[in-house]
Amino acid sequence: MQLGRLYPQPRDRSREAHMRVAVLGGDGYCGWATALYLSKQGHSIAIVDNFIRRQWDYELGVQTLTPIRPLSDRLKVWQELTGNQIELFVGDVTDYDFLSSTMKAFGPEGVVHFAEQRAAPYSMIDRKHAVFTQVNNVVGTLNLLYALREFQPDCHLVKLGTMGEYGTPNIDIEEGYITIEHNGRKDVLPYPKQAGSFYHLSKVHDSHNIMFCCKIWGLRATDLNQGVVYGTMTDETALDEALINRFDYDEVFGTVLNRYCVEAAVGTPLTVYGKGGQTRGFLDLRDTVRCVEIALLNPAARGEFRVFNQFTEQFSVLELARMVQTAGKKLGLEVQVDHIPDPRVEAEEHYYNAKHSKLIELGLKPHLLSDSLLDSLMNISLRYRDRIDTTKMMPQVNWREARNTRRQQVSASACSSASEPQPAATGRSR
Amino acid sequence: MQLGRLYPQPRDRSREAHMRVAVLGGDGYCGWATALYLSKQGHSIAIVDNFIRRQWDYELGVQTLTPIRPLSDRLKVWQELTGNQIELFVGDVTDYDFLSSTMKAFGPEGVVHFAEQRAAPYSMIDRKHAVFTQVNNVVGTLNLLYALREFQPDCHLVKLGTMGEYGTPNIDIEEGYITIEHNGRKDVLPYPKQAGSFYHLSKVHDSHNIMFCCKIWGLRATDLNQGVVYGTMTDETALDEALINRFDYDEVFGTVLNRYCVEAAVGTPLTVYGKGGQTRGFLDLRDTVRCVEIALLNPAARGEFRVFNQFTEQFSVLELARMVQTAGKKLGLEVQVDHIPDPRVEAEEHYYNAKHSKLIELGLKPHLLSDSLLDSLMNISLRYRDRIDTTKMMPQVNWREARNTRRQQVSASACSSASEPQPAATGRSR
Repeated sequence: MQLGRLYPQPRDRSREAHMRVAVLGGDGYCGWATALYLSKQGHSIAIVDNFIRRQWDYELGVQTLTPIRPLSDRLKVWQELTGNQIELFVGDVTDYDFLSSTMKAFGPEGVVHFAEQRAAPYSMIDRKHAVFTQVNNVVGTLNLLYALREFQPDCHLVKLGTMGEYGTPNIDIEEGYITIEHNGRKDVLPYPKQAGSFYHLSKVHDSHNIMFCCKIWGLRATDLNQGVVYGTMTDETALDEALINRFDYDEVFGTVLNRYCVEAAVGTPLTVYGKGGQTRGFLDLRDTVRCVEIALLNPAARGEFRVFNQFTEQFSVLELARMVQTAGKKLGLEVQVDHIPDPRVEAEEHYYNAKHSKLIELGLKPHLLSDSLLDSLMNISLRYRDRIDTTKMMPQVNWREARNTRRQQVSASACSSASEPQPAATGRSR
Repeated sequence: MQLGRLYPQPRDRSREAHMRVAVLGGDGYCGWATALYLSKQGHSIAIVDNFIRRQWDYELGVQTLTPIRPLSDRLKVWQELTGNQIELFVGDVTDYDFLSSTMKAFGPEGVVHFAEQRAAPYSMIDRKHAVFTQVNNVVGTLNLLYALREFQPDCHLVKLGTMGEYGTPNIDIEEGYITIEHNGRKDVLPYPKQAGSFYHLSKVHDSHNIMFCCKIWGLRATDLNQGVVYGTMTDETALDEALINRFDYDEVFGTVLNRYCVEAAVGTPLTVYGKGGQTRGFLDLRDTVRCVEIALLNPAARGEFRVFNQFTEQFSVLELARMVQTAGKKLGLEVQVDHIPDPRVEAEEHYYNAKHSKLIELGLKPHLLSDSLLDSLMNISLRYRDRIDTTKMMPQVNWREARNTRRQQVSASACSSASEPQPAATGRSR
């Protein structure tokens, strides 16, 4: 564990109201909400994005439930409404010339790195998607580490990791490190990793690479091992229809609670994988943005690789399905729960107790999962019901197969919308 | 820890004298010796190689101490001397079409995977070398995992890892897994990884990826976490001058004991990095080849990811220097030991106690480091003294720098050979 004793310690940034922060992947689900939130708090923000997240929707024949606008429109409206200008750098973080020149031009004090392929099922489609995910994520992060070393060595890296790095060990999960007593000796070591997809593994690889660079170059980094995010709105994205955030409900990019809410709204059974005892950490998107700010305002020391477990509550996926069922009933919706074969290779029942106190200690006030949040998600689903493609909810990517046919689009005749056909508005595949 | 209960268990291969074994990277230092040894034992061998190891010598302006022949010559002489034909597949394991068609064509029961960039300093030259090393190694291994899953699912993967994956924790190092008791609960988890270069990190990434594929696809794999190898000869490579093995002594590819022996032979001081208390596991090349055979003859079960620590003795690098000094004295050589600034970021004094009993239990009879081996290495150095370039021994790659100028070749005038200039024979840079 690097404590950075060799390096000059940082100014106390917690007293600095304004920071220059680059948000890599700032056009995505968490990235967009984070960029707006940080801009609203008075920080100077640059978004760095290559729009590949939008490209993956085209590839998979899916679309966000909510009709998001082009980033240039989003930024224009944000400036009109708030007077805050967010800078934009369009390019790929795996392109070092682009990334390093961006770092030099913007000169950030903090970098929030969301710019990775983030869907486990996408990484499990086939070999090309597995290789793409690992190369894209690992090389992007390596490039960022080198760019910081060369041009912004004092900049604080806030990296989005995942709770999925830990897997489901039969002991408590600690925040990044664990004290091990063994044969009469003791050390604090990185917590063992047992990731469950090529995507989750890419984050494990990143964590090891970042830890090493903090050690050899005295970089400062915080790895936010985030749980499963739910929700779509923040105070900022709710300001105007043009600022609306992504809401993915498909089997590849849709996170589980968001998908259940859409399923409940359109009257298809909730797709619980296997027994549903899979327990994970969850958090509201409004807490994601605040956690990132907390990390930025309390930076790691030079040479320190710090890990926070970023979630607020644990649930099993069956517990979530039951909660959605109950909330649906109150809205007059008949919600069925289906147990379908688990497409993933994972324990369907297991011990799970993960620590998550560090962000709380630094001031996080969690938005715990509530009926009103579930109501809100279902109401959004009902509002955009015409855009829902119900053929995109059942899992098509099986972990046990080396080649899943996810690229084969369903034919037009097999594609059904939950509403009457509205050719210009439905989410049917190309 | 996957115990493979879901998969059919293997035939008892320990009774099969003959196996079909593909040696990926079979033209390299350990790979060549392994291919010949396994061929001699009666196994049917295919070498898979793209000769990039020879290319790196050109890039760095170095060459093996020993004049190795083109692989086609080597294989022809081997067949003439023994009657054993080794098949050859020329191509890159990062090319899936090539690798998968090779697996289909040869149909191996075992694959020994040496085909990675294996030098820590090479990976630390600059960003391009770091990215190359991680992408080359990780993608090659991912491709191999997919090829096995698709075309040879019962084939046993014997993967070369490294003891460097563990770093230098303050507790005993176990073989791959450690039993952790924590807050009243217990689990057997992957041993925490603290690798010390982008190369060593690439092996950590591989280990996590392979463990996952054993779990989801029921592959069988043994990760040989190898220590630092010394020596150059085996019974097989000694049969004929045409079969001679590589012997790298340069600062990038030369392993520490081999480099010391060359330095002693030519009368330059031994280059001990820092205090020299860096303690590692070491083994003789003749044990490398036997360990690989032991792993092949006792394959992992379906679904099992097994880890063996493959070394026979622990030494600090200063202890090795003293041993070389003593052995040199007996040959009438005056050997100085220089402590130069450590180009690596590593503990120069630390606790180190790594377990290595699993291969012994399966029958390994170690060749412990002896004066006669040191004599032999120094005599080889003296024999090929004309090929030694003494400018290639001092470290030029500093872990603390993001850009090392290793690609800038020294000018002809700055290049000195230990012998009188012999333009056609010296190892001077291009």
